[in-house]
Amino acid sequence: MNRIITISREFGSGGRELGRRIAEELGIEYYDREIIEQIARHTSFSEEYVHQVVEGRYHRLFPITVNHSFFVGDYQTKLLQSVFQAQKKTLQELAELSDCVIVGRCADYLLRDYHPYRIFVYADFDVRKERCMAYNNENERFSEQEIEKHIRRIDRERARFYREYTGQNWGDKAYYDLCVNTTSRNVDDLISPLAKMLEKL
Amino acid sequence: MNRIITISREFGSGGRELGRRIAEELGIEYYDREIIEQIARHTSFSEEYVHQVVEGRYHRLFPITVNHSFFVGDYQTKLLQSVFQAQKKTLQELAELSDCVIVGRCADYLLRDYHPYRIFVYADFDVRKERCMAYNNENERFSEQEIEKHIRRIDRERARFYREYTGQNWGDKAYYDLCVNTTSRNVDDLISPLAKMLEKL
Repeated sequence: MNRIITISREFGSGGRELGRRIAEELGIEYYDREIIEQIARHTSFSEEYVHQVVEGRYHRLFPITVNHSFFVGDYQTKLLQSVFQAQKKTLQELAELSDCVIVGRCADYLLRDYHPYRIFVYADFDVRKERCMAYNNENERFSEQEIEKHIRRIDRERARFYREYTGQNWGDKAYYDLCVNTTSRNVDDLISPLAKMLEKL
Repeated sequence: MNRIITISREFGSGGRELGRRIAEELGIEYYDREIIEQIARHTSFSEEYVHQVVEGRYHRLFPITVNHSFFVGDYQTKLLQSVFQAQKKTLQELAELSDCVIVGRCADYLLRDYHPYRIFVYADFDVRKERCMAYNNENERFSEQEIEKHIRRIDRERARFYREYTGQNWGDKAYYDLCVNTTSRNVDDLISPLAKMLEKL
């Protein structure tokens, strides 16, 4: 069985970077946003729609699809289920392919039969806000308040999606093999020891 | 400032062994039960009394002391406080002395001004029970039911003591830098990477 490492992360915790660099260090595949594209390929929905669903934003879903027109009511539920099924299928295909690191997408739960090593990355809210502010200053300009709101919204959506989909609490350490707090540690310093820990699984 | 590593752990999770072996690997001091002796030295209480207090068993405290006779009511609270004060003083003395690993004793909270690296070690209940059963079979013989009851009691007492004393929830990942689940990992395989992670603090 391939060695599968899943990374769940609070927004702004540096979890994505940590996942990408661990994959680099171990010389194995890394999957993140490109999964969306693959899920969409398994369905007839647009990438944008799939992105909204897997990020937990289906309470305000717009009905843009590729081969369908408007849907309402119960049909919406079926539609969500078909995205979830495609998500599971996509992840299983990736897990069968080779050793890999997968960020997000409930991979820790959906690939449980593959016994992934499940990492949760988190940090204090203020540190996450600072990271987002630094990134924001280099790119677009949002107010501090807008950034705070954004972080809370993303976390809330991820938690809700995870709970509804898996029946487990997002971030509950019982469901992870390792929980890494990046509040007072540079992601840099964590890569090499974490990779060492993941060499033998 | 010295490098302080604190280990909090669920009963039967292998946390104590992990702490001891990390200290060995890093070549630094390791403190565990001997702290009790030092706390007792800072007070006039017996080691047994101090042990009961710091393990959270003060709801059924017996009033055995060295230089005092029986106490009741409010005096009991003052008596507990003096043990807590001695515990803090002892831990601070150890933290000033040299780099070290400290297991339990609310050291993560009491030494917060020393910015310790705070590790929480945990595992699924069944795995912890198995470990305790294996140990039990080599030593004394308790029934499976007695062992289950014992694990739950120790966890409950530690959680209560920690919450009452620190105002924080024992095992809440927000209060730790790293949470390590030993359910599906041998402690053996974790020592070297964890030591590497703790080299640079």
